[in-house]
Amino acid sequence: MSEPDVLVVAYGRDGAGAAPWVEALADRVPGLHVQSLNGPVDIARVRYAVTWRHPPGSLTGFPNLKAIFSLGAGVDHLVSDSNLPADVPIVRIVDPDLRDRMSEWVVLHTLIHHRQVRLYDWHQSEKMWVEDPFQPAAGEVRVGVMGLGVLGADATRKLKMIGFDVAGWSRTAKTLDGIETFSGQEGLDRFLARTQILVVLLPLTPETRGILNHSLFSKLARDSYFGGPILLNAGRGGLQNEADILAALDDGILKAATLDVFETEPLPESSPLWHHPAVTITPHNSAISNYGSITGFIAGEIAHLESGGAPRHTVDRQRAY
Amino acid sequence: MSEPDVLVVAYGRDGAGAAPWVEALADRVPGLHVQSLNGPVDIARVRYAVTWRHPPGSLTGFPNLKAIFSLGAGVDHLVSDSNLPADVPIVRIVDPDLRDRMSEWVVLHTLIHHRQVRLYDWHQSEKMWVEDPFQPAAGEVRVGVMGLGVLGADATRKLKMIGFDVAGWSRTAKTLDGIETFSGQEGLDRFLARTQILVVLLPLTPETRGILNHSLFSKLARDSYFGGPILLNAGRGGLQNEADILAALDDGILKAATLDVFETEPLPESSPLWHHPAVTITPHNSAISNYGSITGFIAGEIAHLESGGAPRHTVDRQRAY
Repeated sequence: MSEPDVLVVAYGRDGAGAAPWVEALADRVPGLHVQSLNGPVDIARVRYAVTWRHPPGSLTGFPNLKAIFSLGAGVDHLVSDSNLPADVPIVRIVDPDLRDRMSEWVVLHTLIHHRQVRLYDWHQSEKMWVEDPFQPAAGEVRVGVMGLGVLGADATRKLKMIGFDVAGWSRTAKTLDGIETFSGQEGLDRFLARTQILVVLLPLTPETRGILNHSLFSKLARDSYFGGPILLNAGRGGLQNEADILAALDDGILKAATLDVFETEPLPESSPLWHHPAVTITPHNSAISNYGSITGFIAGEIAHLESGGAPRHTVDRQRAY
Repeated sequence: MSEPDVLVVAYGRDGAGAAPWVEALADRVPGLHVQSLNGPVDIARVRYAVTWRHPPGSLTGFPNLKAIFSLGAGVDHLVSDSNLPADVPIVRIVDPDLRDRMSEWVVLHTLIHHRQVRLYDWHQSEKMWVEDPFQPAAGEVRVGVMGLGVLGADATRKLKMIGFDVAGWSRTAKTLDGIETFSGQEGLDRFLARTQILVVLLPLTPETRGILNHSLFSKLARDSYFGGPILLNAGRGGLQNEADILAALDDGILKAATLDVFETEPLPESSPLWHHPAVTITPHNSAISNYGSITGFIAGEIAHLESGGAPRHTVDRQRAY
């Protein structure tokens, strides 16, 4: 009896964190031997890889590798590995659970700003009973979502349903039912000029790296009821220039920021973002990966490939998303 | 030329707060003379009254009064006036703006508990980068909405759209598309037994006064991921027994409470609710009245009545809502 094919889990620089994925996947793909990339591997038998921030170069040299699955919504951690085998398809996780969790975060943190939760928290601490009689309705607040992939489109739809005056921007033109959309460099300035609360769900690509900088912030709408534009980033830390965010907050170019992602993660203790009064930090948990939901997707795609199907949900390496 | 008919604004015990309503209504109902009830009034000419917590008895003795409009969503302030003229219809404000603002509050504060915002705020203050890997998705959290009028139905629909496993309860049976509903005394215990986060949007009636008490809290689901049931009340302060809420929080019968309404408003400085670590207070601002939206509705209903239409959106005084 021949040995089964292998699925390797390459999770993180040192393989720490691989164990729960190995366990969860072993239950779902009974025909394969599932193991961490850290440990002895029979290279000829490796047929699939599941990866999250693997050490660059560690996925080379598997002659029978058929597909690489990228955990999480972003794939920048993968395509930045210049030693990735060029002819193996990269499959992106398509996970409604992850999408819905991201929209929870977006709606929550947009509403926290809109309904002035931090102000009322302070009032409570001072036993102050004061309502703002001029509180705008959501329909009077212009939210803009940058990035209209699966995540951005869903968040946009849900912000609209709550009542916000929402528009979207994407690199290439996209149509969303009942939503104003902008695209390309030409549309970006007009999109920013109307946006009071900016929600960023862009992928990290060479084009988008550092896009959240002083120049972009200064193009946002200045007429916000809340005293200035507000930034929410749940895309990637590499999109943002944190020195520019801090300067913009102190100069009044930005009024507040809620950040789930950072240039360096975990956010270093030395970062002034931690205790800036206008900054809310969440620890890259806007849409955490659910083992059951994601391993179910991977098992389904492996069954599809094993039955002769062509790879689906593949990443365009040139565009890096 | 005869003098125009009069619309009186009876706002509050002492008439303070009437002025902006008088001004806003004067713009909308040009055929009528709009004035505060505090001041000389030609009683024979009073044709309409707009009221919010008027002094009991102050709306009697107007022989030509055609309709009373109740500002705000609740009408308990009106029907508790035993001297209210029996044959004059009370028209409830139907205001999509007010409904949408209430749903903003409900979705926001449900998400604050669900996504553990207070925990992550504390983490931030301690520069702790810790995500909860077991954070449930909204679909794993059972929310229950008590009260399925215009406000409750909309909030329920929007909680569902965010992904929560939501059910509703009302005094008489109601059907909501795709939502499990319970009704009556018989359905209440089953509704409470499944509810991990309870959202209360009930009217205040003799039946519902004090309904949020120890007995009700002890029937809520104990299996909540968050360590116990959570109460959100944006209905009326008279629904709740605040001593019971405080005892339940300290006994672990409730895990947390977010309250927009109170037995006495403004909430007295002496209330232990202000600084209880598990209590969030908003100053009865869950759905503030928007002058333009509400006066537009009143103007439309007056035009309808003046053209011979029958009163609509009227209050059932027996049911008190």
